[in-house]
Amino acid sequence: MVLDPPLPRPMIGRLVVIGLGLIGSSILRAADARRLAEVSVAYDAEPAVRARVAELGIADEVASSPAEAVKDADIIVLCVPVGAMGAVAQAIAPHVKPGAIVSDVGSVKGAVLNALRTHLPSGVHVVPAHPVAGTEYSGPDAGFATLFKNRWCIVTPPEGADAEAVQAVTALWTALGANVETMTAEHHDLVLAITSHVPHLIAYNIVGTAADLEKVTSSEVIKYSAGGFRDFTRIAASDPTMWRDVFLNNREAVIEVLGRFTEDLIALQRAIRWEQGETLFDLFTRTRAIRRSIIEIGQETAAPDFGRERG
Amino acid sequence: MVLDPPLPRPMIGRLVVIGLGLIGSSILRAADARRLAEVSVAYDAEPAVRARVAELGIADEVASSPAEAVKDADIIVLCVPVGAMGAVAQAIAPHVKPGAIVSDVGSVKGAVLNALRTHLPSGVHVVPAHPVAGTEYSGPDAGFATLFKNRWCIVTPPEGADAEAVQAVTALWTALGANVETMTAEHHDLVLAITSHVPHLIAYNIVGTAADLEKVTSSEVIKYSAGGFRDFTRIAASDPTMWRDVFLNNREAVIEVLGRFTEDLIALQRAIRWEQGETLFDLFTRTRAIRRSIIEIGQETAAPDFGRERG
Repeated sequence: MVLDPPLPRPMIGRLVVIGLGLIGSSILRAADARRLAEVSVAYDAEPAVRARVAELGIADEVASSPAEAVKDADIIVLCVPVGAMGAVAQAIAPHVKPGAIVSDVGSVKGAVLNALRTHLPSGVHVVPAHPVAGTEYSGPDAGFATLFKNRWCIVTPPEGADAEAVQAVTALWTALGANVETMTAEHHDLVLAITSHVPHLIAYNIVGTAADLEKVTSSEVIKYSAGGFRDFTRIAASDPTMWRDVFLNNREAVIEVLGRFTEDLIALQRAIRWEQGETLFDLFTRTRAIRRSIIEIGQETAAPDFGRERG
Repeated sequence: MVLDPPLPRPMIGRLVVIGLGLIGSSILRAADARRLAEVSVAYDAEPAVRARVAELGIADEVASSPAEAVKDADIIVLCVPVGAMGAVAQAIAPHVKPGAIVSDVGSVKGAVLNALRTHLPSGVHVVPAHPVAGTEYSGPDAGFATLFKNRWCIVTPPEGADAEAVQAVTALWTALGANVETMTAEHHDLVLAITSHVPHLIAYNIVGTAADLEKVTSSEVIKYSAGGFRDFTRIAASDPTMWRDVFLNNREAVIEVLGRFTEDLIALQRAIRWEQGETLFDLFTRTRAIRRSIIEIGQETAAPDFGRERG
C-alpha cells in the first residue's frame, strides 16, 4: 500500500515533532513523502536518536533543544511517552508562539490533556490526538511512512477548543493517511482500555505467568509457542516505558475493564469445572463473528495466521 | 517454504486419516506431496466433507464408513475433536487389524489416551501424538502441505508402548515436516495448558468481554481494534467444537494454570492501583526477551506486526 501523492503546496508552515520513536519518525516520513510542511523540525531528548534522525534525513531540521525546536512552530506534535508529556510541555511553554497548535499522539487522552493545559499558556491551542497504529518495534528506525494509512486517529478536543485548530489537526492526520474520529478524552480512554490497554496487560501477564511456572520450563514454553502463546508475545514486546505510563495514566478505565474481564474469566473457569460445554460453545461461536467484522471493515487481514510466513 | 522431495519408496502401506478438517487434510496433502504411503485413505462423518476431499483429490481413496476406512490399515490417524475420539475408536475397533497403529492429533493427550485404550483391542498399538500447528481456519479447504514444516509434534506413548510403533509414528511426523519430541501425556497436557489452552481461553474471554460492555459499542471495538485487540480475535476465531472439547478434557491443567494467571493479573492490577511503576516496567522488560527467544529458534517471524500487510 502506498500513500497518496504529495500535496500541490504544503498545508503547514513549520511542523515540529518532539520524540522520534516509532510514531514520531513515521509522522516525519509520511509528512516528507506527502510534502505536508514547508519545514519539518525534529527533536528528541536523546542525542543518539537526534543523530540517527539526521542521518536518516527524514526531517528538514534537527533541533538541539526544545526551545530551538518549537521556535516559530505552527503545529507541534509531542510523541513522547504519556508520563513525559507534562515535562515536555513545561520545557517548550515559554517558546511556543501564540496561536500555535500543540498536539500529541499519546495512548491516554485525559491525563495528557490535563498535563498540556497545566503547562501551556492560554494563547496556545491544545488539541490532543491518538493514532491507533503501531508495531511492537521502537525507535526511529522502526517507523515507516504508511504506518497510519487506513488506521483511525482519534482527536479529543477539549470543550471550547478553537474550531480552526481542531480542523488543522484533523487535516494533518487525514493527510498522513488516517481516518479521523472525534470524541471526548474520557470516552477515548474507556474505548482504548478495552481495545488496547487491557489486551496489552493480559498479554504481558500471560507471558509473565508462563515464564514463572515451575513445572514447565521456559524452553518448553518457547518451543511449543506456536500453539497460541506466541501471538501474545508480540504485543508483550512493546516499549516498556510507554506502556508503564499508559497504565499509570489510565488507571480508572483500565481497572474498570479489567474487573469485567476477570469476572467473565472466572465464569468461564467455573463453566469448565462444571463441564458446561454449551456455555463454552456459545461464547466461542460469538467471538468468531467479531473477527469477521474486523476483517470486513479492513482493520485486519483475512490471510490465515496473520499472513505469517508458512513453515 | 517447501517440503522435502518425495521419498524413494513409500514408508507406509495403508495410511488412514479419519476427520478431514484443517489438520487431517493437511496430513493427506503432505503425505501425498512426499509420497509417504502406498495408499492413503480418507474418511469423515460428514458426507459433504468426504465429497469435497474426493473433489480435491488429496486422498487415494475416500471411504464411506469407518469400517471400510480402517480395513487393512497400517497407521490410522484420528483427526476429530478430542470429545469424539472415544466414539470413533469404538466404531473402528472391530475392524482394525492386529498390529496396526492408531494415533491421533488431539490437543489433549491424557483423556485421548484413555479413550483410545478403553475401546481398542490390546493387539492394536496406541501411540497418541499432537502436532503443535494450525491456523484459525477450519475444514478441508483450510489445510496445506507445509502446515507442519518446522513445527513441533509431541508424541506421548503410554508406558510399555511398542518401540517399533513409536518409531513409526515418529518417522511419519518427521516425514510430514515436523520436529518430534516425546513426553508423557500428563506433562504434555500441562505444557499445552500454558502454551495453547489458557491463551485461547483468554483470547475468547477478552473478545466476549469487549462485546458485552455497555459503555463502548461493538462498532467502536471493531473500529479501533488495531490497538491490540485484533491480535486476540485470531485465535478466538478457532473452531468452537474443537476448543470446547479441549477445555472439557484438560480441566485440571487448565484450571491450575488459569489460577496462576489470575493471581498474577490481580497483582498487576494492584500495582496499577498503587502506582507501582517499577513492577510494571520490570515485567514489561522481561516479556520482551521471551519473544526474542521464540524468534531466535524459528518459531516466530521477526517481521513487525507478524508481517501483516501494511496499511
